[in-house]
Amino acid sequence: MGLPNYVKDLEEWTKEFSYFYPITVRFSETDAFGHLNNTTSFVYFEHARIQYFKEIGLMQQWMSQKGSTIPVTADLHCDYMNQVFFDEALTIGIKVADIGRSSVEIQYVVLNEKEEVCMTGRGRIVQIDKKTGKSKAWDDRAAKALVSGNFV
Amino acid sequence: MGLPNYVKDLEEWTKEFSYFYPITVRFSETDAFGHLNNTTSFVYFEHARIQYFKEIGLMQQWMSQKGSTIPVTADLHCDYMNQVFFDEALTIGIKVADIGRSSVEIQYVVLNEKEEVCMTGRGRIVQIDKKTGKSKAWDDRAAKALVSGNFV
Amino acid sequence: MGLPNYVKDLEEWTKEFSYFYPITVRFSETDAFGHLNNTTSFVYFEHARIQYFKEIGLMQQWMSQKGSTIPVTADLHCDYMNQVFFDEALTIGIKVADIGRSSVEIQYVVLNEKEEVCMTGRGRIVQIDKKTGKSKAWDDRAAKALVSGNFV
Amino acid sequence: MGLPNYVKDLEEWTKEFSYFYPITVRFSETDAFGHLNNTTSFVYFEHARIQYFKEIGLMQQWMSQKGSTIPVTADLHCDYMNQVFFDEALTIGIKVADIGRSSVEIQYVVLNEKEEVCMTGRGRIVQIDKKTGKSKAWDDRAAKALVSGNFV
Repeated sequence: MGLPNYVKDLEEWTKEFSYFYPITVRFSETDAFGHLNNTTSFVYFEHARIQYFKEIGLMQQWMSQKGSTIPVTADLHCDYMNQVFFDEALTIGIKVADIGRSSVEIQYVVLNEKEEVCMTGRGRIVQIDKKTGKSKAWDDRAAKALVSGNFV
Repeated sequence: MGLPNYVKDLEEWTKEFSYFYPITVRFSETDAFGHLNNTTSFVYFEHARIQYFKEIGLMQQWMSQKGSTIPVTADLHCDYMNQVFFDEALTIGIKVADIGRSSVEIQYVVLNEKEEVCMTGRGRIVQIDKKTGKSKAWDDRAAKALVSGNFV
Repeated sequence: MGLPNYVKDLEEWTKEFSYFYPITVRFSETDAFGHLNNTTSFVYFEHARIQYFKEIGLMQQWMSQKGSTIPVTADLHCDYMNQVFFDEALTIGIKVADIGRSSVEIQYVVLNEKEEVCMTGRGRIVQIDKKTGKSKAWDDRAAKALVSGNFV
Repeated sequence: MGLPNYVKDLEEWTKEFSYFYPITVRFSETDAFGHLNNTTSFVYFEHARIQYFKEIGLMQQWMSQKGSTIPVTADLHCDYMNQVFFDEALTIGIKVADIGRSSVEIQYVVLNEKEEVCMTGRGRIVQIDKKTGKSKAWDDRAAKALVSGNFV
């Protein structure tokens, strides 16, 4: 079926990930076809993405009651390459692929224990103002954290 | 296996329900054993219970930003009597079994299309103060709504 | 932010839907930001898509123990346009946008009560052989059902 | 509100757990009241219980295509003691409290990072025959594994 348009060379693309989060497939996440239900990949994407945002200090701002912004999902895409089954120990990779004025493009890879690519994904997150609902530009610290992976 | 202790006579008990909410089993709610995953019954309980709380006007208070209280779950119990499968058209019955100072005992019945009892359940909901986290007595209107099923 | 590439003119595109399925947002589907969690749209897409596949007779084949094929998700995409909140009565539209040898491109639209577009989506479903895991071409009846919306 | 009837002394009862599984609260598991949604505790119970069944070798039998039995949930109970929030690092304790002919009583405790008890729970799992749907007695190895925590 060919590669999704955000992946030129799967091997190269996969090497560019440096943040990884482990997830074991829960039984309640399987379905009556015996495999991982397709909707669960987005739960994994969100959980790993948020762990990353925590790592670089952004999530703390968004969760703070004093904070004036929250992140919203602009779009999300998942490409399914290999079926996943109950109890597999997966690794979810997170990569910042592009940083806009108030948005960030995140890419995802889901690897199984054999290091096979089971899913790839991407999606844009936008920072909005809690009250107005309008997009709100990254401040310097946030932009730097997204570039460097360090919140200083 | 005998009846749960909150059900004396299953037929009589089932007749006492007067509020019902329909739910069709989603494929994503099944699991690799081919049936409805056990965790989903609590999702159905909550959804039907909240529809009932909306019907009698309580949910609107709790969801209001001006409101000072929210409901929390004190306990929940589900007894599984018949397996449920993908695409079954279920009916969730809701009954107010007891009203306390700041709490309410809700009972649940899940019927399939043949009107067989698939699950029964019960649980206590407590109204708490958003800020203090402590239980907060029902006001007159709420108590009356829970007794009569009408919020006047 | 511009339209997703599978939507040229939003108004025109929305008019092309003819199958709709109603879904009320469950409280358990919201998250701590107060709105519908982004992962739930894919649960809605699947539920509505499967209702459609049932309508045209395909789901029955796939669920049959005698059947030799099941559908798998090749990819899924969701674009989020308006936030959705607890208890909204949504309508999920399903459209067959393209039929391949063994796959079908499904498009999705999620409308709120004001008929505003909250989300759009698309994704490719592939029919595979249960045993080999390889793609399996539609037979005549299935292909006709996907074209006409009637399984004859 | 007093202790649930399956807990005589909370401190003593908590000490009797010896199998623990760590779970970090996902953002998608919170709800619009800002805390962990009540339905998720049963997802945690199942995941930890199944990890335990895997540890003692039972899950492998049930998942095997050659196996003739599967476990079903007879009942489940959760008592909520302390609210849980996004990103808390919880520990789920699993204890075999009683072994019947074809069933087993499992108890659950959910601790937060301060080792406070957030939830307690219990429930009966019954082994049934896949084909007949009737309860099926434990064989010697399974009964021993449930008693000793070792599948030999």
